[in-house]
Amino acid sequence: MSLGSGCAYAGSVTPEQAPDSLIQRKQLRARQRIIDAADELFARHGYDAVSVTDIAARAEVGRTTFFRYFGDKTEVVFAKEQALLDTIASAGADDTVGAASDHREAIEQLRPIVLRLFAQVTDDLDAYQHHTDLVEKHLELRAREALKTQQLASNLTEVLRSRGTAQTIAVFAGQIALACYETARRRARTAADLVSESSAAFDEVLTLGCG
Amino acid sequence: MSLGSGCAYAGSVTPEQAPDSLIQRKQLRARQRIIDAADELFARHGYDAVSVTDIAARAEVGRTTFFRYFGDKTEVVFAKEQALLDTIASAGADDTVGAASDHREAIEQLRPIVLRLFAQVTDDLDAYQHHTDLVEKHLELRAREALKTQQLASNLTEVLRSRGTAQTIAVFAGQIALACYETARRRARTAADLVSESSAAFDEVLTLGCG
Repeated sequence: MSLGSGCAYAGSVTPEQAPDSLIQRKQLRARQRIIDAADELFARHGYDAVSVTDIAARAEVGRTTFFRYFGDKTEVVFAKEQALLDTIASAGADDTVGAASDHREAIEQLRPIVLRLFAQVTDDLDAYQHHTDLVEKHLELRAREALKTQQLASNLTEVLRSRGTAQTIAVFAGQIALACYETARRRARTAADLVSESSAAFDEVLTLGCG
Repeated sequence: MSLGSGCAYAGSVTPEQAPDSLIQRKQLRARQRIIDAADELFARHGYDAVSVTDIAARAEVGRTTFFRYFGDKTEVVFAKEQALLDTIASAGADDTVGAASDHREAIEQLRPIVLRLFAQVTDDLDAYQHHTDLVEKHLELRAREALKTQQLASNLTEVLRSRGTAQTIAVFAGQIALACYETARRRARTAADLVSESSAAFDEVLTLGCG
């Protein structure tokens, strides 16, 4: 029955990694215009007062175009998180790291990926703080963020699986890596601390049994 | 700035542990009638087609009474989870366990609480499976469940804090305990396996550094 495995998050269309065609570049620009329009409208009028129609109008695209890129209004808020998920999802496909033979090795394999996530998400500290503030104010956004965060663990598990790691180890390591991610978010005093705090959490987890 | 600490979940009114007054017993019955009415209507018409007004009418209470017990329609689905959160929240207040001095001891202290949660949540296996099926079908419910699950970790952290454990250890242990909880949910083939799977995950985490 595989409890909880159905929690997979239905992602929306995202741009290719290397946009080499004119169509792809146009799509990327349209998507970015939607994100920018939403950011501006949310900042000016508040999240609740802005509709998908407002965002589409401001971005000068139709509602159909909006829904090609984002499942709903909430998804625009998490555009960057979706990109992170896609990055992880594809990380396992094109690397040469082998299967992890035990829990410890599996967690070690996920550490650099989690550190990279924090580096990516905090490359613009102001934007990150603005995003965090918006999410904290809305129950719906906090709930959606929690789901995105769970999906991080699933995608980390998938990286290990694609390298040939046993399912039972991959599931465990994905959840432990997420625990390090969440510990870092809760301990960090500023967004700038996230990378070092997550590294510290991994150190702590990997020395647990030695006490 | 305390990133992510604002993710606290705004719980709704829940009954006292030991309902000793007539008013408390009446409140408990009204709350239970709302839950039963919602379960029945969701099963018959589907979650989306049922409104708070429908549920209140079926339970023979006013909308005001509904909102005294539940923040919104989604909350009724998670009535049992809310009770679990309350149980954890109060666990630290009235026990005699001391502060955990290190990560390992902190995680050991949370193990019996997580096992008790699974025992509680699966005391009626059919109801649990019915609930899981409903949640998996709806993005909004999956998101809200993810938020409830995050709150489990916060409440577990609070238990350790109330015993005098250092914040930095308590945060880490709460997230690791949640990782064991989630690992169990993903590994369990049936709900009956949840207790044993979570116990196994704790064993694995506590022997991580010995490899």
